[in-house]
Amino acid sequence: MFKSEINIRVLYAHTDKMGVVYYSRYLEYFEAGRNDIMEKLGYPYTKLESSNIALPVIEVHCRYISSAKFDDDIKVVTILNYMPSVRFRIDYNLFVTDKLIIEGYTIHSFVNMIKFRPVKPPEDFVELIKHKI
Amino acid sequence: MFKSEINIRVLYAHTDKMGVVYYSRYLEYFEAGRNDIMEKLGYPYTKLESSNIALPVIEVHCRYISSAKFDDDIKVVTILNYMPSVRFRIDYNLFVTDKLIIEGYTIHSFVNMIKFRPVKPPEDFVELIKHKI
Amino acid sequence: MFKSEINIRVLYAHTDKMGVVYYSRYLEYFEAGRNDIMEKLGYPYTKLESSNIALPVIEVHCRYISSAKFDDDIKVVTILNYMPSVRFRIDYNLFVTDKLIIEGYTIHSFVNMIKFRPVKPPEDFVELIKHKI
Amino acid sequence: MFKSEINIRVLYAHTDKMGVVYYSRYLEYFEAGRNDIMEKLGYPYTKLESSNIALPVIEVHCRYISSAKFDDDIKVVTILNYMPSVRFRIDYNLFVTDKLIIEGYTIHSFVNMIKFRPVKPPEDFVELIKHKI
Repeated sequence: MFKSEINIRVLYAHTDKMGVVYYSRYLEYFEAGRNDIMEKLGYPYTKLESSNIALPVIEVHCRYISSAKFDDDIKVVTILNYMPSVRFRIDYNLFVTDKLIIEGYTIHSFVNMIKFRPVKPPEDFVELIKHKI
Repeated sequence: MFKSEINIRVLYAHTDKMGVVYYSRYLEYFEAGRNDIMEKLGYPYTKLESSNIALPVIEVHCRYISSAKFDDDIKVVTILNYMPSVRFRIDYNLFVTDKLIIEGYTIHSFVNMIKFRPVKPPEDFVELIKHKI
Repeated sequence: MFKSEINIRVLYAHTDKMGVVYYSRYLEYFEAGRNDIMEKLGYPYTKLESSNIALPVIEVHCRYISSAKFDDDIKVVTILNYMPSVRFRIDYNLFVTDKLIIEGYTIHSFVNMIKFRPVKPPEDFVELIKHKI
Repeated sequence: MFKSEINIRVLYAHTDKMGVVYYSRYLEYFEAGRNDIMEKLGYPYTKLESSNIALPVIEVHCRYISSAKFDDDIKVVTILNYMPSVRFRIDYNLFVTDKLIIEGYTIHSFVNMIKFRPVKPPEDFVELIKHKI
């Protein structure tokens, strides 16, 4: 298992009239966590893209256990727990003051950005994760 | 089964640098479909709210089969196929020129907006759905 | 003067904890109006792009006179009142039940999408607007 | 003059198909800067709200000099340069690697959140700013 942590401050922009973060915004927090774990892994997303590989989301799941409010400081814990193959799963746990509020995952595929075709994950990426998780 | 259909035109705002709709935006399209099916059912969301009941999302799942592009005209098909109880499930199928691109569902709970406590679905709402699906 | 009108239904996604539409969302409504007026003019934005010309916003101004709420049906009136040159101005008036709530404009430049350089507006576009406004 | 600085990392979510940050997203960055300067001033926005005062935006202006891209680290400089009265102006300068890319301001009014009526700015807030700018 390989983990990373970042903190995100909830903006007014993220809330809705119920006074809590709108349900789709958490997927942007997932992306922030995803970018962070790739960077901490030593394989930033921009490196993937410079090899003409994109990592589109092909599935997302999210459980809303509790909600975040304006000005909350959300701890986004991103977790790599699976080896990348044609599919690549990333998990997310979001906390507000140590209370788990959101639990989710995304599943990605590796796609050649020029031909828009699925490709195998880069070997150096697979090796890197093998040594980390 | 009770269905509704609306059309949504993809804005530049919805796209990302990959040239396709960003993955969290589809959840806004789900909301548009949800508002529409409630209205067509004869129980608009504003009616629920005027009884101090909110319908927060407690779970979302989404499969990205293909992607929508700028200016695409997305057909959002919203489907009620389950009786509301403490949980209430709504399904969504999104099409671009008759090709299924997105498949997802949301699960909601009924919550008293003043006490922020789960409540049973309103009886007239349950009756209405019983006759429709 | 050349005008177009579209209607936009306010989603929960557009609102913030103050119960009204968040201030940046109106700029997406402006875009929807902009796409619409280009189409009604007979020069859809996709046509511009297929000539490798983009129309980035270089300035925006917006006055918030009143606010829109969830489920409001906003009438977006888009207005062409100026000839395009190196700059191109578009005006917007947003109404809820005939009350003006938002007044704004965007100023655009014409940019070659390959060289990322400012270019003159396409002649047929200039001609078209000359006959319309 | 009273200034604050924060850094914001550009997400994929913020970009559009032109490969740069979509024009309305900068208004969210403005909000992040606004929240930060209020906090650094010693008068966080949540303090205003706990006195039932909101600070809605009544005008925004933004000049897009250049653009930010995915993964850019934007420096948001927020500036208080005007005394609050019935109107309150805040200025923003956004930089990427020391290059000014965005220049804008927002004008706010003070509103009683219960009566939705304009009110004078709180005296301690006025005093605080008087000593800082």
